[in-house]
Amino acid sequence: MLSKQSAIPLYKQVKSEILSDIRSSVYKVGETIPTEIQLEKRYNTSRITIRKAINQLVSEGVLLKKQGKGTFVQPQKVKRNLLDLVSYTSYMKETGQKPDAVIRVLEVKPADAGWSKILHIIEGDPIIRLARTMDLGQNNSGYEVSYYSLERFPDLDKRITEGASVTKILNEQYDTFGNSSEQTLNVISASQQIADYLKLEIGSPIYQLDRTVYEDNGSVMYSAVMYYDVNKVSFSVNTKER
Amino acid sequence: MLSKQSAIPLYKQVKSEILSDIRSSVYKVGETIPTEIQLEKRYNTSRITIRKAINQLVSEGVLLKKQGKGTFVQPQKVKRNLLDLVSYTSYMKETGQKPDAVIRVLEVKPADAGWSKILHIIEGDPIIRLARTMDLGQNNSGYEVSYYSLERFPDLDKRITEGASVTKILNEQYDTFGNSSEQTLNVISASQQIADYLKLEIGSPIYQLDRTVYEDNGSVMYSAVMYYDVNKVSFSVNTKER
Repeated sequence: MLSKQSAIPLYKQVKSEILSDIRSSVYKVGETIPTEIQLEKRYNTSRITIRKAINQLVSEGVLLKKQGKGTFVQPQKVKRNLLDLVSYTSYMKETGQKPDAVIRVLEVKPADAGWSKILHIIEGDPIIRLARTMDLGQNNSGYEVSYYSLERFPDLDKRITEGASVTKILNEQYDTFGNSSEQTLNVISASQQIADYLKLEIGSPIYQLDRTVYEDNGSVMYSAVMYYDVNKVSFSVNTKER
Repeated sequence: MLSKQSAIPLYKQVKSEILSDIRSSVYKVGETIPTEIQLEKRYNTSRITIRKAINQLVSEGVLLKKQGKGTFVQPQKVKRNLLDLVSYTSYMKETGQKPDAVIRVLEVKPADAGWSKILHIIEGDPIIRLARTMDLGQNNSGYEVSYYSLERFPDLDKRITEGASVTKILNEQYDTFGNSSEQTLNVISASQQIADYLKLEIGSPIYQLDRTVYEDNGSVMYSAVMYYDVNKVSFSVNTKER
């Protein structure tokens, strides 16, 4: 219902009506919304208001105009819960998708000053560096680089295989589980390599999520840097005061 | 110490050394780093490696080159903890800064469909819409728009004054405290208005943090949408498994 007395611009009211209709699946993801003439009638407003509302939804990535084909409801962003450190493999299974991670680099090398500090090991001690791209569905990929102490997890480099869940290997073969974590989220510009992996233009804004997970005894289980397309991922944090 | 045998490119080793020297205040925020000649000696490497390391640190916003003045260590980003819903006013006081919020809009209006759903009230019921810019120090501003039910908090609109902490008013005058919260973080393109408030170019990537805070009994205390410059704010989430 549109109210002309309200201080909200009309097109914003229409926009919020359209969003509500998308949420309630009046317009479904992957399908087109009605024509402008039909929308004018449905929301009882002018063509110019409809256009303004639609243009804003297009610029927000909710709708996508395809030349000669209509205006489509875009897939929702992938929503990752920052409090639930569920592994990539589990996440995909929970959401009914097939995990598909590709190993880009798997190497053992001496820890530099920075990583030795983060992993609580001595500089020069061997670390495993695992770089992977992870398919998140809907043509959406993440790029993740994880670091593990080889002395803490002997032979881990030999046990990591394409498609294996490293978390599962750590849980089952090394009997360790994450107990606490520190995460920092930034937005940076995609380098050439990451842009390629994420199918973006170089310099596009991407999330960089730094995560260090600790074992029961406070030692570091792993540390990872993850990169995601800002237009395809959002993060949620739901807290309950204790 | 730089290791030539390592698989890490030399410039990345130099970069990590410089970062470590910034962290340990060998190079201080707001001051220049040494000249390229001096850095060559200090890190015992070539001019081209030094340049590559510095260019990368410039592109990451750690360093800033000023024509004819040198290369400066940039101020750190403001780091907001997503688990600690500390009010703006308390945050500034805790970090030794003076809170400086400017009210841009303070109005009472009927709730539209979307906000009535979020605030758990009936469409058309009066809501307070409070839009403010908040100074975060170091030429960094946030823009926040908060929504409150006027029926839940009678006269709140009259009690909100420039510089007042709304959280404090709610705590002290309405005896209510946030108990749980839902937050979603996205990155969007700055509209003209928000770009002006945040002193950015239109279309710049900005964080949009949606937050709804609930009272003890599960009713909504407030809901807010907050906007921050991605280059000046990062978010942290540290979890402890229970």
